[in-house]
Formats: sequence, structure tokens, C-alpha cells
Amino acid sequence: MRQIIECVPNFSTSDPKTVEIILNELKTTQNVFLLDYTFDDYYNRLVVSFVGDKQSVLEAIVKMSFKAIELIDMRTHKGQHPRLGAVDVVPFIPIKNVTMEDCIQIARKFGETLAKERCVPVYLYGEAATQPERKDLDWIREGEYEKLAEMIVKPERKPDFGPAEPHPTAGATITGARKVMAGFNVNLGTADLKIAKKIAKALHSKKGGFSNVKAMAAFIPEKNITQIGMSISDFEATPLYRVFELLKVEAARYNVPIIGSEFCGMAPLKSLVDIAAYYLKIDNLTVDRVLEIAVQNVIEQRETFE
Amino acid sequence: MRQIIECVPNFSTSDPKTVEIILNELKTTQNVFLLDYTFDDYYNRLVVSFVGDKQSVLEAIVKMSFKAIELIDMRTHKGQHPRLGAVDVVPFIPIKNVTMEDCIQIARKFGETLAKERCVPVYLYGEAATQPERKDLDWIREGEYEKLAEMIVKPERKPDFGPAEPHPTAGATITGARKVMAGFNVNLGTADLKIAKKIAKALHSKKGGFSNVKAMAAFIPEKNITQIGMSISDFEATPLYRVFELLKVEAARYNVPIIGSEFCGMAPLKSLVDIAAYYLKIDNLTVDRVLEIAVQNVIEQRETFE
Repeated sequence: MRQIIECVPNFSTSDPKTVEIILNELKTTQNVFLLDYTFDDYYNRLVVSFVGDKQSVLEAIVKMSFKAIELIDMRTHKGQHPRLGAVDVVPFIPIKNVTMEDCIQIARKFGETLAKERCVPVYLYGEAATQPERKDLDWIREGEYEKLAEMIVKPERKPDFGPAEPHPTAGATITGARKVMAGFNVNLGTADLKIAKKIAKALHSKKGGFSNVKAMAAFIPEKNITQIGMSISDFEATPLYRVFELLKVEAARYNVPIIGSEFCGMAPLKSLVDIAAYYLKIDNLTVDRVLEIAVQNVIEQRETFE
Repeated sequence: MRQIIECVPNFSTSDPKTVEIILNELKTTQNVFLLDYTFDDYYNRLVVSFVGDKQSVLEAIVKMSFKAIELIDMRTHKGQHPRLGAVDVVPFIPIKNVTMEDCIQIARKFGETLAKERCVPVYLYGEAATQPERKDLDWIREGEYEKLAEMIVKPERKPDFGPAEPHPTAGATITGARKVMAGFNVNLGTADLKIAKKIAKALHSKKGGFSNVKAMAAFIPEKNITQIGMSISDFEATPLYRVFELLKVEAARYNVPIIGSEFCGMAPLKSLVDIAAYYLKIDNLTVDRVLEIAVQNVIEQRETFE
């Protein structure tokens, strides 16, 4: 029985040296495996995706976070992505032979460790949230690092672990458990952030867009373009192709071309299946009908194969 | 080390009782696993997809074929799909830890067995072909079952195994080895077979269409529509989305709507990745960036997981 948990920590850095040191903590931990990492100056953010068994994932993320707390100074941090701290968000995601409850327990242990050993205030979010409004990352992150000191003392914003004051250089950390989500960035052929923000707004759940979708706009100086960064928390209910088609419609309104896109992190197979089924009008396509998955299912059924 | 070979036999029947008996031979063989089967009256053809190790796949397909030879009478067979015999085509496909050479050897053993034990003439095709023109299924199948008796005596058409005369009720069998291919059917909102044939022709490699693509048109009486049946032998070089887009263009010319489509057999993941990358303009999408595959690769790297 192989247990697999995915962890997708978001650190507030894009300094190559710091990135290397954080990743090195992962690489020197047994039984965890790096799937992907990206960091960009315009977000000033490092997003890592790795998997492993429960114990090894916890061990790795604690080591990585201790380094991030040591090296990142939020007092001088600037970036276009909202953030509350050096170790900004750390979700644990059940992948195989692991329950959501297992992930909640790991998030709690992780939060307790940061609070106890590094005096970082920690909020639990998503499935691990202790109050309904804390399910929502954006609610917790309101005011960002800059306003953390005045927000954190409010009774309804008392951290789940650690002191009710920001760590001076590391701010606060948000951790929790959630299902697999789709992260997707779309690059627009315009440098006009106002237009990009209007398009992002049209998609965002809280602004009348799709439920399950968060969308933000960012400017990418190196390319002199803008980007819509999206996360779709339930991509079965709100399929990626539908969000993309609406984005196309809104972009066309401003005569803005879509010049490219990318998954942020790993691509969930179900989202690809839904894309193929939509554009090619395939009536009966399911994940189980993908050759590689069907073969894998067969192998797992019978580990006694030749 | 798990060996996996896929076998996709095509039998000339759509009689439910015969289908059941043939599938039962598969189900009663150890270490083989049914992935998919379809049969349609308009093609009068049963296509099965199953996997297993070399020895078990050979055992299963021999048993299935013996039943098909026993039960199917080609003298009364009618269907819109070209065919030469009861056990019409049997490709072996390397999936995991198996070489093309392994599949060629199995095809040869299978062919020898049908010839020796059932007196069925057998042609080798694809990677197992013994002459360049025999690589091509259509060349071997020219004239179909009805003209087999006059074709088979030509020196250049001497069977690779068995007698140079048709089996009276089972015709001839074609077997061989090939890479994974994509089978894809598109239903058209017209009953006019002439239009469907024109569209199929536009796609077919031998008629000026895409290399790697075979396309045929069929009429589906139950639905009073037509269908383009395609196979793409190299769907990396000739991606499915591109074939589909050209099909759309040609269909639009005749004002014929595309009402649905389906993979015939399993869907290769690479074709889904290419579809998603095209329609959503994803720059860096690869099979390895699909979450489920990345996780699987990790498990295979380390079978010593908790």
C-alpha cells in the first residue's frame, strides 16, 4: 500500500540562491520526490510541488520552511502576488491511499511545529480551517504582510497556532488541506494591466465570475505583457476549457490576443480529458479510457504480473 | 519488471452471442486484462483491446481466434469495414518493458499456430511484414474476402504462413506488430454517404490527405447518419487535433455538422496532451507534466515506498 501526499508550498522569494537552498532541503530528504517548481520575479514567489509518504513530506516541508524563515525578509519583499509571510501557503493534498483527514492532521502538525520552534503565527485554511471564513485563503490574507500586525490582533483573526503577532521577518504562514486543483496562467498580448484586471475580474468567483475560480492579473516586465493567473479549486464542476473560452471572449472584447498559457504546477488528467472531450466533441471520454491509466490500473490490480 | 503487451484483435462479427463467446475465452485466461471492446452492426466487426504479458496474451488470442474461426462464416458476412477473414487483423503493440522485436516474434508464433492448427492462411503486416508492400494493411486486404481466392494465388501474395488458398469459412488472417495508434470516429449530421466519402478522402494519406492517416466513411442506419472512421498511425507527427480541424473545415464546406466523436479503443495520453496544448495554447505541456503520470513515475522509481 503506497501512500502519496502532495505538498505545494508557496515561498515568498524568487532569489535564485534562496530557491536553491530551499530546494536542497527537499533533495536531501529521503522518500520525497520533486515534481515541479517555478519562480518568477514579477510574483517574487517560489511554488514547489513534491510528493511522498506522510512522514517524509512533513519532514521535508519543515526543513524547507525553516530555511525560508531564516533567509527571507518580508520587510523588503515586493511582489504582485498577495502574501502574508515567507512561508506563505502550504497545502497538503491527498493523492493515493491517503484521506483528507490525514492531510488535515499533517497540516496541524506542520503548523504546530512552525509556531513552537520558530514563533511563526499559523492559520489553518481549506479543509483544515477551524472557522468557516478561514476556508478561504483570501480572507486570511486580507491586508497582506504589510497590514498583518493590525489584523492579527483582532479576535476573529487569532492564529490557530503561535503568537498573535507577526514574526518580524517571516510574517505568518497559512497551511491546510485541499483537493487537487488546477493552476493555469494565460499570457495576454497587452502591457495594459487595467485591461488584464478587467478580464481577471470577469472570471473571479467573488466578482461574479465562475464559482471555484480565482483569477488575478499581473504585469510581466521582461516580456512587457500581462498575465492572468488562475486557480480552479473544483475543475470537474468548472472545467478549465470553459474558463478559457470565457477568457477568450473577454480578451476579444479588448482586441487583446492570447499569446500562450501554462499550467502552474502539474496538469490534472481530468482537466485534459475535459478539454479533449469539449473541443473534439467526444461523447464518452473518461480518465479510465486513457491507455496509460488503464494499463496502470491493470498493473495495480495484479502486482503478481510476470 | 512488468512486461505489458497490448493486443487489438479485429473479428468479423457483431453477433452478440459470438461476441460473448469470444470474450469469454479472454476472461478465462490468466494474466490478461480486457481494456475495451466495441462492436457495431454497420461495420459488422468486433474490436477488442486487452493487455498482459507475452505468453498470456498469445494464449488468449489463440483461444479467441479458434472460437472465431469456428463460429464466423465469411461466406455470409456483410459489413462496411474492409476485411479478409473471420480473424481479420491482430496487431501486437509494445507497451511496457517489451520491444517491437518481442511483438514481431509473438505475431509470428500466432500466425504459425493459426496456419498449422486451423489451416488459415496468414499474412504478416506492419513491423512484422516480410516484404515492404505488406507493411500496409490495405495492400494485403485488397479485394477483401470476396476476391481472396483469386488474389492469394499470385506469387507476390503468397501467405507468410499456411496454404495459398482461403480457409473456406474463415478467409485469411493478418497479424503483425505496430506502435500505439489513435483510432477516432467522427459522426456527421448527414445521411449522405457521398459527402462523408469526400470528407474521408480529404484526410486519407493515399488520397492526398495527411500522411499517417487512414480514413473511411460509413453509413449508420440506426441513427441515419454517417461516420468518418480514422486511424492515425503516428499521432505525434500528425496530431489528432489537426486532423479534426481539417475534418471540420471540409464538413463546413458541405454544411454538415459534426455531431459527436469517440476514440475507437483506448485514448493515448499524448494525443490528449496535444489537443489541450493546441486549443488552450499551452507552451510547455508534456506527458510528464500530467500529475497522475508524474506520481506514477515516482512510484516506479522507488518501489520501496512506505
